[in-house]
Amino acid sequence: MTEFRPPVADLAYALKHVVGYDQVAELPGFEHADFDTVTEILEEVGGFMAEVVAPTNRAGDVEGARLNADGTVTTPTGFKEAYSAYVDAGWGSVPLPEEFGGGGFPRTIGLAIQELTTTANMAFALAPLLTQGAIEALLHYGSDEQKQAWLPKMVSGEWAGTMNLTEPHAGSDVGALTTKAVKRADGTYGITGQKIYITFGDHDLSEQIVHLVLARTPDAPAGTKGISIFIVPKFLVNDDGSLGERNGVHTLGVEHKMGIHGSPTCVLSYEDATGYLVGDENLGMRIMFVMMNSARLSVGMQGLAVAERAYQQSLEFAKERIQGRAIGATQDSPIIDFPDVRRMLVTQKAYIAALRRMMLLNAVHVDLSTHHPDAAARARADEIAGLLTPICKSFGTDLGNELTSLALQVHGGMGFIEETGAAQHYRDVRIAAIYEGTNGIQAADLVGRKLGVRGGASFLEFIASMRELDGELAGAGDDFASIRAQLSAGLDVLEQTTRWMLRIGAADPNSALAGSSPYLRIWGLVVGGWLLAKSALAARDLDGDSVAAAQLPLARFYAEQLLPAASGLVGAATAGSRDLFALDADALGDVVRRTARV
Amino acid sequence: MTEFRPPVADLAYALKHVVGYDQVAELPGFEHADFDTVTEILEEVGGFMAEVVAPTNRAGDVEGARLNADGTVTTPTGFKEAYSAYVDAGWGSVPLPEEFGGGGFPRTIGLAIQELTTTANMAFALAPLLTQGAIEALLHYGSDEQKQAWLPKMVSGEWAGTMNLTEPHAGSDVGALTTKAVKRADGTYGITGQKIYITFGDHDLSEQIVHLVLARTPDAPAGTKGISIFIVPKFLVNDDGSLGERNGVHTLGVEHKMGIHGSPTCVLSYEDATGYLVGDENLGMRIMFVMMNSARLSVGMQGLAVAERAYQQSLEFAKERIQGRAIGATQDSPIIDFPDVRRMLVTQKAYIAALRRMMLLNAVHVDLSTHHPDAAARARADEIAGLLTPICKSFGTDLGNELTSLALQVHGGMGFIEETGAAQHYRDVRIAAIYEGTNGIQAADLVGRKLGVRGGASFLEFIASMRELDGELAGAGDDFASIRAQLSAGLDVLEQTTRWMLRIGAADPNSALAGSSPYLRIWGLVVGGWLLAKSALAARDLDGDSVAAAQLPLARFYAEQLLPAASGLVGAATAGSRDLFALDADALGDVVRRTARV
Repeated sequence: MTEFRPPVADLAYALKHVVGYDQVAELPGFEHADFDTVTEILEEVGGFMAEVVAPTNRAGDVEGARLNADGTVTTPTGFKEAYSAYVDAGWGSVPLPEEFGGGGFPRTIGLAIQELTTTANMAFALAPLLTQGAIEALLHYGSDEQKQAWLPKMVSGEWAGTMNLTEPHAGSDVGALTTKAVKRADGTYGITGQKIYITFGDHDLSEQIVHLVLARTPDAPAGTKGISIFIVPKFLVNDDGSLGERNGVHTLGVEHKMGIHGSPTCVLSYEDATGYLVGDENLGMRIMFVMMNSARLSVGMQGLAVAERAYQQSLEFAKERIQGRAIGATQDSPIIDFPDVRRMLVTQKAYIAALRRMMLLNAVHVDLSTHHPDAAARARADEIAGLLTPICKSFGTDLGNELTSLALQVHGGMGFIEETGAAQHYRDVRIAAIYEGTNGIQAADLVGRKLGVRGGASFLEFIASMRELDGELAGAGDDFASIRAQLSAGLDVLEQTTRWMLRIGAADPNSALAGSSPYLRIWGLVVGGWLLAKSALAARDLDGDSVAAAQLPLARFYAEQLLPAASGLVGAATAGSRDLFALDADALGDVVRRTARV
Repeated sequence: MTEFRPPVADLAYALKHVVGYDQVAELPGFEHADFDTVTEILEEVGGFMAEVVAPTNRAGDVEGARLNADGTVTTPTGFKEAYSAYVDAGWGSVPLPEEFGGGGFPRTIGLAIQELTTTANMAFALAPLLTQGAIEALLHYGSDEQKQAWLPKMVSGEWAGTMNLTEPHAGSDVGALTTKAVKRADGTYGITGQKIYITFGDHDLSEQIVHLVLARTPDAPAGTKGISIFIVPKFLVNDDGSLGERNGVHTLGVEHKMGIHGSPTCVLSYEDATGYLVGDENLGMRIMFVMMNSARLSVGMQGLAVAERAYQQSLEFAKERIQGRAIGATQDSPIIDFPDVRRMLVTQKAYIAALRRMMLLNAVHVDLSTHHPDAAARARADEIAGLLTPICKSFGTDLGNELTSLALQVHGGMGFIEETGAAQHYRDVRIAAIYEGTNGIQAADLVGRKLGVRGGASFLEFIASMRELDGELAGAGDDFASIRAQLSAGLDVLEQTTRWMLRIGAADPNSALAGSSPYLRIWGLVVGGWLLAKSALAARDLDGDSVAAAQLPLARFYAEQLLPAASGLVGAATAGSRDLFALDADALGDVVRRTARV
């Protein structure tokens, strides 16, 4: 296993030279978050993650979280100490409001910290990630009293938070949930029902867990319109703020999963547990969307983060493993000298660079959407964040699967042996394409909700803004000629498929949905190519910077060798739904009939 | 978990209507292997696998094979009984020579049986698969005496076989192995060394295991030229054929792997074990290639087989899982009604159909290459088998990874829970892209050895033969118009990249190798499209056949939506090696430098 080396230099490069972090640092309220300060913080965080959190990753996988006979949940060796150190250092509070004890830094920096945490240990990082989601919901919709009561200790990390949506028959269809919330005379609610797939639903990292639970009041409308959201703490809190008796929530089971073994995925039973309504009744879905949009970006980031860890390990292996002799070599070669191994490494590195820039760009627009003084600028930033979020989530996590597979492949037979550690990354990251809205649901969100914003103008304007790079590429000389040509071709493909989607979508939504996943991937490929081109252009002025020196080869490799995949997806994006439904369910299974008539 | 439903109807359809099995049945020696007979056999095998072998798959994963304190290896519950029934039924011997108790059926039918066995339980299927590899080596290179001594019980399956290549520092670089073979006065050899990754290197399924071991005699030349191959039985055999004392081979460990837990992957120690030379000294690599070419096709088939099992499970889940409401539906819908879920299902089905046809076509050419009465026809068939083998291996196993991932994704959150069983397929199949020559090595074989056959004429003739379908497609009407257009475009891409490879390869082999993996994938995509087009054309005359009815929609979906990916790979296939080597090993890791200079 290799040590984890925090990719702070690339984060800093992307912030400064690619995604326009300076715009964020100029926003009211972020005056203290200048570039030098945030890079210092990221250096500190990176060091902490490498030294304290990364070493817990393997034990987390091997031991896993476990449910004890007494109903408590124990996290793997080292998690508790690492979490305690994390809380003491205050890393989780950096992007949270100063009013509640946070650092008041932008979401962009919060995302970079999440990336470093996740790269160190994805399973561990889920605890603060879920807490942050719960905090955001309370910040937006909690009463002042609720904020004062719950936020300070959640912001510090002393108390953890969870999100409780899923039930056995209500997964993607959240509106089908049946957990009941019955109002009591004292204004609290009695919550009764069963929730599944609750990440860090119980654990021993913090003394208190604050569950945010979706439930339905007795007279609520059917479906998503009748969902309310409640604070349901593990322990009731006394008036003096100390913890009181145990609330009616209990852990029925911890799932046996393919990966992220260190993260307890719980089945929770609520039995007339005391809950406190957030906002008003039937506002639950609106509140969940606040949490989900943020969480979706964070989950996209997980694809990137685990891919980074896996890449680092595969690179070290490729440098050290001697096997055979490369062409022209006079002695046995490390496998990094073989072109196809190089392809696997450079593919990882180029996609990782593209993803990191894409995630940060998304976060920058989140910050602009919340903090820009101009309402029109906020609104436009919100549109762009809305466009980028499903792309970051799906493209990021699809690539998480693909890139960790390449990293495993670099190891040859050793990659399949668990002790090597490469398999863990491949297993861990696999959930990210599923949870927080499957990648198919992200694609449906892209064409179903986001595409129609201002009749498609939001998308077309973003495409036009990407085309503005063409002038600079044209003036950048021969080194950039293929990048310019391929980016232009990619943008043409993107615009063409976008216009097809706009044309077909209203008349035949099933056909738009049929092409939604390949269409999303076209977006991901093109935005990635555009960002790497920007990255390479910026590098021209940065002699002697070793991160900068890598940008042109990476951008050119991406443009010439990865981006052209976009053109290969046009057929799938625009074929419509006919052939997807040409075979009925029986015909789809029809390979097994007896063969008498063949 | 769904029951496994053997895809015999599709196998029969492919044999009869797509890959020209009738040519094989007409070959001298295969008169008894007419189509009706072989489909009856496949029906029987399918039923056996569904009833006897498939039920052992889950226990195999959960329990795994284990090394006991006394050095013996125990397979999971049910494996021993299933293997015993398999031997009794004689399925392993169907494609083996009648002279040694086999059924004398073609390799093509053997491959179909392997597919059915692997779909039922990949881990289990490795035992007969490895045995068959060892049998083939002995058939080709063993002395008459050796054949009489070892083959009858190996053919029946009473004795199992293994292949021992890998050592800790000799993986892909087989020539680096150091296991020693010292000739004794009695003509036998003393074998000493350590072998790793030995599939079914020890187990309790059979009373005897016949290891084929690569080793080096004291004065052998360095590298692959100095390798010899030896029969090293687990138990010495007495003159009367009974088993004698234990030979000097012992199991040091059983690997802890990501998948195929039921298959014991052993570390074996040879300590002056008695070995019998096969063929002559220093012929080891030639003999291994006999085994490997056959094994490579079988491993490609594994990608297909596990994908089939995973597909069936995801289809059943999609039919049963009710979640939300599809467009136009008046009540909650099974998820199969959602277009993006359909995309995941139809993608699986189309690729699986293409792979099955490709594997069988490869096997047909193996049979033609060994049994055709005309030497020129044999030679050409051997070329085509040589061309198709690396494609089947790499494309088949890459798709094995991708399709089992889609099957898992269809399950949503349940896909990540081990009890669902979808994760097992994803984990099991991951090794197939690695062993028997990594997929990168297959790609190197394609451009390094196979492309150069007759100065490229072998490849170009095969491309030309695929183009011959164009006339039939042209005459098949509007339904086939898009298939014709896309296949023609795919063939253009394939020919263009092939000519580039031929041009560049001699002058700059590193650039050919740099593009070898994408080039191989172009081959896979185009051959798949061609075979599905043939399949759809044949279906026109088969009214009322439900497998036939699926062929046109599948072929059209593939042509319009999957095959265009080939054009997106041209850039990667023909970019040369420059950008792969633009960053040195340090620069590839350079994201971690302190940021002072940014």
